[in-house]
Amino acid sequence: MLTDSTIETWLREDVGHHDVTNHLPGETAGRLVAKEAGVAAGIDAASAVFEYLDCPVESAVEDGTAIEPGDVLLSVSGPTRDVLRGERSAVNVAAHASGIATKTRQAVEQVQEVNGDVSIAGTRKTTPGLRGIEKRAVAAGGGDTHRLDLSQMAMVKDNHVAEMGLVGAVEHVREQASFATQIEAEVESPADVPRAAGAGADIVLLDNMSPQECERAVGLLAEDKHGDVLTEASGGITIETVPAYAAAGVDVISMGSLTHSADALDLSFRTDGD
Amino acid sequence: MLTDSTIETWLREDVGHHDVTNHLPGETAGRLVAKEAGVAAGIDAASAVFEYLDCPVESAVEDGTAIEPGDVLLSVSGPTRDVLRGERSAVNVAAHASGIATKTRQAVEQVQEVNGDVSIAGTRKTTPGLRGIEKRAVAAGGGDTHRLDLSQMAMVKDNHVAEMGLVGAVEHVREQASFATQIEAEVESPADVPRAAGAGADIVLLDNMSPQECERAVGLLAEDKHGDVLTEASGGITIETVPAYAAAGVDVISMGSLTHSADALDLSFRTDGD
Amino acid sequence: MLTDSTIETWLREDVGHHDVTNHLPGETAGRLVAKEAGVAAGIDAASAVFEYLDCPVESAVEDGTAIEPGDVLLSVSGPTRDVLRGERSAVNVAAHASGIATKTRQAVEQVQEVNGDVSIAGTRKTTPGLRGIEKRAVAAGGGDTHRLDLSQMAMVKDNHVAEMGLVGAVEHVREQASFATQIEAEVESPADVPRAAGAGADIVLLDNMSPQECERAVGLLAEDKHGDVLTEASGGITIETVPAYAAAGVDVISMGSLTHSADALDLSFRTDGD
Amino acid sequence: MLTDSTIETWLREDVGHHDVTNHLPGETAGRLVAKEAGVAAGIDAASAVFEYLDCPVESAVEDGTAIEPGDVLLSVSGPTRDVLRGERSAVNVAAHASGIATKTRQAVEQVQEVNGDVSIAGTRKTTPGLRGIEKRAVAAGGGDTHRLDLSQMAMVKDNHVAEMGLVGAVEHVREQASFATQIEAEVESPADVPRAAGAGADIVLLDNMSPQECERAVGLLAEDKHGDVLTEASGGITIETVPAYAAAGVDVISMGSLTHSADALDLSFRTDGD
Amino acid sequence: MLTDSTIETWLREDVGHHDVTNHLPGETAGRLVAKEAGVAAGIDAASAVFEYLDCPVESAVEDGTAIEPGDVLLSVSGPTRDVLRGERSAVNVAAHASGIATKTRQAVEQVQEVNGDVSIAGTRKTTPGLRGIEKRAVAAGGGDTHRLDLSQMAMVKDNHVAEMGLVGAVEHVREQASFATQIEAEVESPADVPRAAGAGADIVLLDNMSPQECERAVGLLAEDKHGDVLTEASGGITIETVPAYAAAGVDVISMGSLTHSADALDLSFRTDGD
Amino acid sequence: MLTDSTIETWLREDVGHHDVTNHLPGETAGRLVAKEAGVAAGIDAASAVFEYLDCPVESAVEDGTAIEPGDVLLSVSGPTRDVLRGERSAVNVAAHASGIATKTRQAVEQVQEVNGDVSIAGTRKTTPGLRGIEKRAVAAGGGDTHRLDLSQMAMVKDNHVAEMGLVGAVEHVREQASFATQIEAEVESPADVPRAAGAGADIVLLDNMSPQECERAVGLLAEDKHGDVLTEASGGITIETVPAYAAAGVDVISMGSLTHSADALDLSFRTDGD
Repeated sequence: MLTDSTIETWLREDVGHHDVTNHLPGETAGRLVAKEAGVAAGIDAASAVFEYLDCPVESAVEDGTAIEPGDVLLSVSGPTRDVLRGERSAVNVAAHASGIATKTRQAVEQVQEVNGDVSIAGTRKTTPGLRGIEKRAVAAGGGDTHRLDLSQMAMVKDNHVAEMGLVGAVEHVREQASFATQIEAEVESPADVPRAAGAGADIVLLDNMSPQECERAVGLLAEDKHGDVLTEASGGITIETVPAYAAAGVDVISMGSLTHSADALDLSFRTDGD
Repeated sequence: MLTDSTIETWLREDVGHHDVTNHLPGETAGRLVAKEAGVAAGIDAASAVFEYLDCPVESAVEDGTAIEPGDVLLSVSGPTRDVLRGERSAVNVAAHASGIATKTRQAVEQVQEVNGDVSIAGTRKTTPGLRGIEKRAVAAGGGDTHRLDLSQMAMVKDNHVAEMGLVGAVEHVREQASFATQIEAEVESPADVPRAAGAGADIVLLDNMSPQECERAVGLLAEDKHGDVLTEASGGITIETVPAYAAAGVDVISMGSLTHSADALDLSFRTDGD
Repeated sequence: MLTDSTIETWLREDVGHHDVTNHLPGETAGRLVAKEAGVAAGIDAASAVFEYLDCPVESAVEDGTAIEPGDVLLSVSGPTRDVLRGERSAVNVAAHASGIATKTRQAVEQVQEVNGDVSIAGTRKTTPGLRGIEKRAVAAGGGDTHRLDLSQMAMVKDNHVAEMGLVGAVEHVREQASFATQIEAEVESPADVPRAAGAGADIVLLDNMSPQECERAVGLLAEDKHGDVLTEASGGITIETVPAYAAAGVDVISMGSLTHSADALDLSFRTDGD
Repeated sequence: MLTDSTIETWLREDVGHHDVTNHLPGETAGRLVAKEAGVAAGIDAASAVFEYLDCPVESAVEDGTAIEPGDVLLSVSGPTRDVLRGERSAVNVAAHASGIATKTRQAVEQVQEVNGDVSIAGTRKTTPGLRGIEKRAVAAGGGDTHRLDLSQMAMVKDNHVAEMGLVGAVEHVREQASFATQIEAEVESPADVPRAAGAGADIVLLDNMSPQECERAVGLLAEDKHGDVLTEASGGITIETVPAYAAAGVDVISMGSLTHSADALDLSFRTDGD
Repeated sequence: MLTDSTIETWLREDVGHHDVTNHLPGETAGRLVAKEAGVAAGIDAASAVFEYLDCPVESAVEDGTAIEPGDVLLSVSGPTRDVLRGERSAVNVAAHASGIATKTRQAVEQVQEVNGDVSIAGTRKTTPGLRGIEKRAVAAGGGDTHRLDLSQMAMVKDNHVAEMGLVGAVEHVREQASFATQIEAEVESPADVPRAAGAGADIVLLDNMSPQECERAVGLLAEDKHGDVLTEASGGITIETVPAYAAAGVDVISMGSLTHSADALDLSFRTDGD
Repeated sequence: MLTDSTIETWLREDVGHHDVTNHLPGETAGRLVAKEAGVAAGIDAASAVFEYLDCPVESAVEDGTAIEPGDVLLSVSGPTRDVLRGERSAVNVAAHASGIATKTRQAVEQVQEVNGDVSIAGTRKTTPGLRGIEKRAVAAGGGDTHRLDLSQMAMVKDNHVAEMGLVGAVEHVREQASFATQIEAEVESPADVPRAAGAGADIVLLDNMSPQECERAVGLLAEDKHGDVLTEASGGITIETVPAYAAAGVDVISMGSLTHSADALDLSFRTDGD
């Protein structure tokens, strides 16, 4: 849910107290245009910037659309002063979100060639203040949003296990969590995977394991007839190493870099004179 | 100025309504630790997350410090529940800011070898909501913060020039702007540089010019005895191409990628048991 | 996540611009005391009111504790002016949350006698602005928090079904939703329950069915070997009718009245003189 | 004054970061409909939810209107996604406010039969964050809003009296308060009522007195010729006991339960297909 | 009620994104000092600025204290950077509020010499965002805060009268307003004063009348035995003309200039080196 | 950048929880009218109040226009209730801003007669919360906005000088500051002026000097051939003393009183019946 207050924060930090540069009369129109190929995202957020300034805006593409250089993402018109004041925030947010969608699509395409059943997922390693926008950008790129916040899913972590043992910890969290909340258990060796599943975890997180270890974990789980329990590989997986994890047969591969280390997509704002 | 309201926004979006995972008794302590080499930044922001949660925190390094894998950036203690709830936001903001500082330092080091008088500067292409943090991260990396917002400096752009001519436009903006506000004029060819300087611009922006064109512009300016007018090269300059621009003799090289396309620095949060 | 901004809103609306009544010198101490028996909740929120005013506060019980008349919930000390200014907001929020916890516990006890495996759950019918506090109060009373917000779980509703058929709708939502997000399908007759389960729903919502219909739905599901699919009864269920639904063998009974129609628990604030 | 920020808070807490359920194309229309009889309130707040989402909305009734099952309170149209996202918050606020108005009207009708001159009033025991909405709901039900916040009226309480005596305390508060601010004095026995009136109180609060004590207090006041001083009975008065207080001749009967313990009125939202 | 959010707004607008000037190491201490004589006010607000920055602060005087040049209003210590960042906002708010208190005291002293029973009151003509601070500054100067907001008191104005006649209008507003809300009626000629009083107004506003007309209005009211009804003179009354109004025997004289046109009191902030 | 949140703050503080006075049916129209001559400012802010309330508004003059008694500044129409609720905030902000613009114009006119090259500038002594509005009001009056916030310009102050000497301090701040940030050095005697200029200050602040000292400082600077360095006189300069400073040949005269001690311009709001 993108709120007006958030848009205000963006505009206030960029405009400041007295913007002489854009203090211009008249009306203008402009377009947000791609300068390189990628996947569009953040269109709603960029539109919301101009809507806050009461400038009519029309999206030309939906989030998730593959775009080529020269493609228009949205067009806007209104008082020159307002269009120019919104420009930078609108470009910044759309370029940022589209960069995430583009990187996500690359990872998705990498794994599709190897294993069509694997999901590429984001993490909670998002830029502070932009959780929703970045999660929706991951979805636009064909990725899985994963845990949206700490409250959506419960995680059994090493500190729980240290205190209560793996089985005890899973049962303890299950008791506290709603039926609407899935339980994911983090394990450190393949051998722990069937134990976590047996204790009632919905998903088992294979943290910092090699593709080989992941393959072994998946195999142990299958032997143990926990076919409905999902496996997730996580920890420093890159565009380069992702196919090997996909080949290992895990259900989900999560990558923090989709959100924290995606280059912005090159977008520019062109007014009618340009 | 980082406010409590901003911290609230970060925590609220990450914690949600009912966090079962971290609903743990007792006290704990933790440290923010580097997993790769780089430049620290965002320490104040990460500290502020824990301070908002009333967990005592101590920075181990200052923004701008070069860090090696294993180095501690800050340490914190407090109720387990609160330390764990702040962890993700604190890591995310410090990793993001440190990534920017690290990339900036790389660019600075590239140009230092060629021309010690050149500044590497950020732009207004920052992540919405993080302007101040990202600008201070650029400074931590040894870069120049450049225009903090639209109100700090006035820019003469093509739409002004189209209407009033270059000289008229510079004079018009000069009239509207405070003595405290510098005037930068964007030009499209080296030949326009002395004209902009002559009209009273404090800085001339060489937009999307090649290093050769930049060198020519700098030469023309010197011939014209505008030694106090600065030149800034901008437009798609990368870590790879930045030395050529430095060699061209411009005063400032601004790079949007410092803020919009820097990979996060790999940091992790370790509690005492880890 | 209860933020300072929320506390500010409460205090600002109660104190106003110039509170003459509580403009008193000196220090005082006070206690939040139960005047009737029930279940404590909202203690954190009440404490946070006084903490915002920098008055040291200590909780005497945890959320979920059964309390008797005369029991102290929290004690506070500080400047008389500040203690008295926080008093009303603190009492109001704790009385409201404790009322919800108390009503939830009543419903839970009703079903425990009939069927120990049934969960009593809240709904999204919460008081605007208090979602988190009310969900945590339901948990304090022994209830299940259910869907915390629209993003936590995905719901297949009649408008989806009308367009794509039940099976198509479940599959469509499954495709859009993360692995972290469960799918609940709303059905209108017992016969649809096995179809929804077969299409991949994690939970089937039996909306406005009688206990007899619920029993039939549960039976059909068992015959169809969807033992891992949960059933939820919902729609106008009261403390009086809840045992019949529990006897019908559903897994979850959700009751909007837990949050929208619970009487406040009678609490009072007593200062030292009282 | 209901602000956009408040509406944002409601929508943000209900929608979350990525709402898959309501991510639907097209336009729809819907109506807020009563499922039981009562008194409408909160219509402005429910409308404001949809207005924030830019969905045109039309109220069908005004706050204070008696409604029957099937009556429409408001109708709305707009993009399906936005109408459905606003639905729950709009229903929740209107059901809550209408429940308060309905309970207030019941109390008012109870006393009207006994004594047409008595006012039923709310208190400051409102749900945190909803003071204005709940006070206006009390007014919609025919009740008196009483003290809107601490600053509207000044109260002489036991701690003032302990320090300065009743007469001294009333005089002290009178001195600090504006002519625009009335003074109410809380007394613990009927005998104190004429003393408080004589000292200059505008209203005397008969706290936790029986109807018989109230009657005695009213009588003493009349004997003492303080006909312009109002008496208010307060403290645990219910729908059942309110007529006895009305018969006692007090001017105002205030009931915290009007706001803190009113059941929500049963309202539902129906889209065109329903 | 001064909230942290308000303090944030002040600091954010003054500090900006990257304050180089005050980026200093070490600790310092400072004092807010009067440079001219007047009445102190806004001390709480100035203190709150430093408290927000976690700098211990101690007030040296209370609001309402008469101060001489050189008098210290508050002292503060803490990290140099934070003390210097809070300085300007703290001085600005205290100088502004003290200016209002000082002007109010002047007006109060003017009337005291003529008629000790007259109150000098502020109006709703306050600086946007500072209602509470300015009202409390008026009180600090010995003035009456008058109507704090539109909801505290109800006003019968010319548009009501035009529609329903004076008597009808007063009765109509009386019906809508709580017993806690006083009714003030605005009249345009002395002759209307007894009619307004007779209809039930608590206060009659003599708008833009001369002192002579006010005297006549007061006389008519006395004749009519409405001794408990107050009269208020308002409209362009200055420090110069206020004694004549006081002599006319009105109860209250309200002056918008107390808040909208008071010169700031000259205060400065001195650090230890100064 | 004036945000909706700011407007909300203004309206919320003036309207309160339940405004009976303006609870009126129907539509109305109104005009903001000057009652005395001056310079218009704050028109955008006053308009924004009505726009927030969805009342169509049209400005009749631009900020900076000289207005005469009877001139209309803006007109508005809409539901009576909303127009009347916005009235006071709109008048208050426009009267405040126009008072600042009017006082600025007086100072500007004073110096124009003496020395057409001198700028009259505001300071950071603005009313908390209104920085942007007051700076733009200074500009509307023909003044120079000066430093908008601490981050726009860097100041070398006595505490820097004490530690590093004047030259060292200027060089130190120059190193920390962006090329986009000018450096102003505060000096205490005319003899320091050429030294500050020589060390690289862009502007030299002549703090609390007499016109004679200022003249000497300007002379020393000219002798020293620092023609491009500006001089600013500051410290208790009034409308009366400003011409003497202008005659002294400084470039800028800054006056805190423009913002902290300007009388509001007398404006009123007239609805159609008036």
